[in-house]
Amino acid sequence: MTVHEISIRKPLPAFLRSYPLFAGIKDDVIASFGNYAVAKFERKGTILFLPDTPNDKVYIVRSGWVKLFRETLGGEEAIVDVLTNGNFFGEIGLAGTELMPYGAEVAEDAEIISIPRFLVADEVMRNSVFGLAVLQSLTRQKLQRDLEIEHRTVQSAPQRIGCFLLKLCRENQKGSITLHLPYDKSVMAARLGMQPETFSRALTRLREEVDLTIQGATIQIPDITRLSEFSCAACSSKFPCRD
Amino acid sequence: MTVHEISIRKPLPAFLRSYPLFAGIKDDVIASFGNYAVAKFERKGTILFLPDTPNDKVYIVRSGWVKLFRETLGGEEAIVDVLTNGNFFGEIGLAGTELMPYGAEVAEDAEIISIPRFLVADEVMRNSVFGLAVLQSLTRQKLQRDLEIEHRTVQSAPQRIGCFLLKLCRENQKGSITLHLPYDKSVMAARLGMQPETFSRALTRLREEVDLTIQGATIQIPDITRLSEFSCAACSSKFPCRD
Repeated sequence: MTVHEISIRKPLPAFLRSYPLFAGIKDDVIASFGNYAVAKFERKGTILFLPDTPNDKVYIVRSGWVKLFRETLGGEEAIVDVLTNGNFFGEIGLAGTELMPYGAEVAEDAEIISIPRFLVADEVMRNSVFGLAVLQSLTRQKLQRDLEIEHRTVQSAPQRIGCFLLKLCRENQKGSITLHLPYDKSVMAARLGMQPETFSRALTRLREEVDLTIQGATIQIPDITRLSEFSCAACSSKFPCRD
Repeated sequence: MTVHEISIRKPLPAFLRSYPLFAGIKDDVIASFGNYAVAKFERKGTILFLPDTPNDKVYIVRSGWVKLFRETLGGEEAIVDVLTNGNFFGEIGLAGTELMPYGAEVAEDAEIISIPRFLVADEVMRNSVFGLAVLQSLTRQKLQRDLEIEHRTVQSAPQRIGCFLLKLCRENQKGSITLHLPYDKSVMAARLGMQPETFSRALTRLREEVDLTIQGATIQIPDITRLSEFSCAACSSKFPCRD
């Protein structure tokens, strides 16, 4: 069975209703989101939109991985972010940006929900509780970027990988945890601003430091506290990450 | 005459009225901002607030320099941003954050306007045009962080300094420009994620590449186009920076 044949786990309206960012939205508005929203399975490599092109949707990653990337004038690709379950993107258009400053590409087979942006924009203007929720979400994302900049200054490469793994753990998770990463490690390396060889060496060191078991794209973390003690020592935040 | 004796150039209400972020706010609300706002000259080294402490104001830098910093659990300082004329900070509190994730310290004698946060927060809830303006401002800041992360991957050290200088130029500036930087170069170096020695070497190389004249804290850029061609070659944006 390919990923394209798996049926959607939860009906789309119920998923939208349970999506934390939409908590302050009334049922009839959520219903209209549901009428226009589309859930699609997308193959690795699919371009959702290119940098510097117009786009009229906002997106939620329901499963899989999506990378946001920019291209320098010299033609180099810089990965801005790698998103997975529950992450939201394309909201930049809410700020009146006509052309998307980044592009979005499916990094591993993914289920993507898209919602026409005008619906979300109208609700931001009409419903100040939702407007504030979007503002809070953007503020958190900005703080995450601040932390990322901090990390590139003060964290070692193994600590940065550990930090990335911790972000994939839910707040209340304790003890042993199994994570599924994008199979293509070069995407993670680029996201963390490392050369693939640096990434491999750093992952090996992290494995030794905190006893990870790595099998292909699956990483088993035997003790999340040990991982957080190792990574958060060089960070101004701590696990669970308040930002 | 010390900086503390210089009188305020424009009355505070007129300054607030002309502040771009407040363009969508009615005159009576601006007047109430003006009644509660305070403009103060602050000496270099003054701490406006510490990381992880509560704060109930938003701030505008009218002149001088302010650094936003975080501290790692290991005690290292990471400079998140260095702000100058017209920059806005402390808005993070609008997102319901009780403790400020970063601290703010005056990096060079500065004139700072502070406004009680509840006034701004009330207006965000009441006035969706202003709410959207705040959202747009945050989105731009988030994009700037994305660019910063990109730059640390693909730009050389001299290009990064050039990019920082370009951000201090106004959009419509052409030809020759004179900029006044914070006298303490270590602040700029830390902001750009460089060791002071790397910063000095890179500044020398940039001076040779684009013919800067540097006298203490004053930098004269003879040809802004040449500087932007040099720096923006390794960036996905270009001058004037759309983000």
